[in-house]
Amino acid sequence: MRLSRAFLPTLKETPAEAQIVSHRLMLRAGLVRQTSAGIYAWLPLGWRTLQKVEQIVREEQDRAGAQEILMPTIQSADLWRQSGRYDAYGPEMLRLKDRHEREMLFGPTNEEMVTDIFAQFAKSYRDLPRNLYHIQWKFRDEVRPRFGVMRGREFLMKDAYSFDLTKEGATHSYRQMFLAYLRTFARMGLKAIPMRADTGPIGGDLSHEFIILADTGESQVFVSKGMLEMDPLAETPDYDADLAPLVERWTSHYAATDEMHDEAAWASLPEDQRVSARGIEVGHIFYFGTKYSQPMGLRVQGADGQAVVPEMGSYGIGVSRLVGAIIEANHDEAGIKWPDAVAPFKAAVINLKPGDLSCDALSERVYAALGTDGIYDDRDERAGRKFADADLMGHPWQVIVGPRGAAADKVELKRRMTGERHEVSVEDAIARLNG
Amino acid sequence: MRLSRAFLPTLKETPAEAQIVSHRLMLRAGLVRQTSAGIYAWLPLGWRTLQKVEQIVREEQDRAGAQEILMPTIQSADLWRQSGRYDAYGPEMLRLKDRHEREMLFGPTNEEMVTDIFAQFAKSYRDLPRNLYHIQWKFRDEVRPRFGVMRGREFLMKDAYSFDLTKEGATHSYRQMFLAYLRTFARMGLKAIPMRADTGPIGGDLSHEFIILADTGESQVFVSKGMLEMDPLAETPDYDADLAPLVERWTSHYAATDEMHDEAAWASLPEDQRVSARGIEVGHIFYFGTKYSQPMGLRVQGADGQAVVPEMGSYGIGVSRLVGAIIEANHDEAGIKWPDAVAPFKAAVINLKPGDLSCDALSERVYAALGTDGIYDDRDERAGRKFADADLMGHPWQVIVGPRGAAADKVELKRRMTGERHEVSVEDAIARLNG
Repeated sequence: MRLSRAFLPTLKETPAEAQIVSHRLMLRAGLVRQTSAGIYAWLPLGWRTLQKVEQIVREEQDRAGAQEILMPTIQSADLWRQSGRYDAYGPEMLRLKDRHEREMLFGPTNEEMVTDIFAQFAKSYRDLPRNLYHIQWKFRDEVRPRFGVMRGREFLMKDAYSFDLTKEGATHSYRQMFLAYLRTFARMGLKAIPMRADTGPIGGDLSHEFIILADTGESQVFVSKGMLEMDPLAETPDYDADLAPLVERWTSHYAATDEMHDEAAWASLPEDQRVSARGIEVGHIFYFGTKYSQPMGLRVQGADGQAVVPEMGSYGIGVSRLVGAIIEANHDEAGIKWPDAVAPFKAAVINLKPGDLSCDALSERVYAALGTDGIYDDRDERAGRKFADADLMGHPWQVIVGPRGAAADKVELKRRMTGERHEVSVEDAIARLNG
Repeated sequence: MRLSRAFLPTLKETPAEAQIVSHRLMLRAGLVRQTSAGIYAWLPLGWRTLQKVEQIVREEQDRAGAQEILMPTIQSADLWRQSGRYDAYGPEMLRLKDRHEREMLFGPTNEEMVTDIFAQFAKSYRDLPRNLYHIQWKFRDEVRPRFGVMRGREFLMKDAYSFDLTKEGATHSYRQMFLAYLRTFARMGLKAIPMRADTGPIGGDLSHEFIILADTGESQVFVSKGMLEMDPLAETPDYDADLAPLVERWTSHYAATDEMHDEAAWASLPEDQRVSARGIEVGHIFYFGTKYSQPMGLRVQGADGQAVVPEMGSYGIGVSRLVGAIIEANHDEAGIKWPDAVAPFKAAVINLKPGDLSCDALSERVYAALGTDGIYDDRDERAGRKFADADLMGHPWQVIVGPRGAAADKVELKRRMTGERHEVSVEDAIARLNG
């Protein structure tokens, strides 16, 4: 994309309403624009990152055996009356009436709907297990939306729902998602920590929040150093095998949020193993047994001919929230520092002297080699403005083309994450960027 | 995907509520399920096709220079008051109030919002031209939703909006979309005809509907045979060049809907050039000048320092509707016949004797070679049921693996579109499917 023709509006001033760094940077770099309180339009730069985040989530859900569907945003109130949640859900639920005065709502989540859909088709034990997910816009009418996309009202969420015949089966489904989540966040360049979460009236230990570490995080977390050193991408799990040993490697480490923190267990850790940090919740997985299958009338015939009420779990990832969280974890004074996997563009070609024949030729050559991964700052602007915009937008690589280097077929290659710069031949630059 | 583990529920009976063939087949083949009147959940098979349709639309928009954004579904009523449409729009608009009693609506279209977003950033003539599009769920509260996804209430639409400094510029943007639309539909295996549409109070000839031909179409169309013989994919337009000659090649042919039909002009065509057929509208492009830029206060500084009110156009494609339209144009008694480019899976491997060692081995081999493009009917079902389901779901290829062929490393390859079947070696089958 050529900046001279792109819709990539940056702001010089920091918008007054933005209280946290990701919100400020998303507005300044032109990733989003607020259209109503807590509701955002995604501009080209933000939209590209959102799609990349979404695609990583999708690939890891698919790999773990979940199947993608898409449920609508508008749901019938009757569905929620069956589960008893229509009255229980507070004013966060956006309720509305259609032209025939039927009560509807903009879905904040989909347990009722997916259970209803599944119940229409699942008749026998052979139709289970299944795990269905979708990535869809949800609405929660926060009383005071803030922090940009981190706590917006209209937000993109991945929610998966598993259906199993037994608690053991549901535990396996839970573990599949547990491991898939670790891989998902690691692929985005994030250090995500599974933390045991409150299971409420269901009880048991089958609920985890996934929290990524960021100095500017919203909550305090306590985690053993050993867990931080583990790499979820070191091996790809066989999702059909017994996953208990793999999951236990993670859950055997201490990790807790403020609310679940156990001072005694924490104190028993060697001091150099205790890491206290700030974190941001980006996912939550939950086993809830027959909480929805029972009232929604989901029943299948078991192998023995008896009716079985399936055991369910749900598994959420805040997809649009992740874009903010990634920025909270990766930025500096100058702007965003995108991890490679989620960067809207891999590299920006910065032409310091548009109109200079050799600068133009060299820039075009690098830009052409980058294909759709590249963005070309061909604007008639000062070098300082171009550097500032590239740093603000956070492209992982900058290819700086100036007249002196161009004369020798050389460019400067800057790595945004580390700030390292090297003068290299244009061939080396292209090979490195396409490698 | 293995059918034994997939969520691909087919129905044996034709649902009573479905009046048209695409609706019947989408329900029977398990593409969608209605969750409220005119509101559908997309199940895995339908969702895969919807994504393929969406991706073709996206690629051709990008190729023509449009830039993707994503606007939210919920809009502020105030925005629509600025254009005067809040009161003008009828009961199709889904109006609602948030918890603070602010009037909001579920967007049926986005002229106001995109103009407002653009106005925040565009300050000078150098910020134009731009064409911004998004692919987002819309809501129109049809009084009597019907025909499945062809006239649903919640539907997926691609809408693009162009901003130009002059009417000439706007005409160029219009032509870009005109040609991009022809390519878009052709890539989906559809014969789409641009038909001059009523421009209402704006006047002029810059409005076209794109109508695909299908015997079961909703409206009568009249088109010259010469136009039907043209191939939009024969050459890729240079979208920066003067597009008038290319567009005129199309508009010089007679093509009209019932409402715009001109009996005299029609009668002047040679009789063997007159084709009267049924059609389905899948796109609409429209130039509307300053209809929205004026009231929404969009102004930029021209090259001469004077304020300019940009000229706009909008360009819509019914993405979810297209899935129905493609089926209307491609089906037979037995089910759907997907064109290759939009098929949810390229090929189904039909194992006629699961448990037979050579059938299993051969089936697994072909299935593995297909990767994610393949679906494997490994169910313990009668052959007749498997054939019927494969025909119903409409996969372009069926690879039929039976014990007799398997003994000789042979399979039967069936082309769904034509019904042709050939016995071929497994190597030939794999080469053909991956070719």
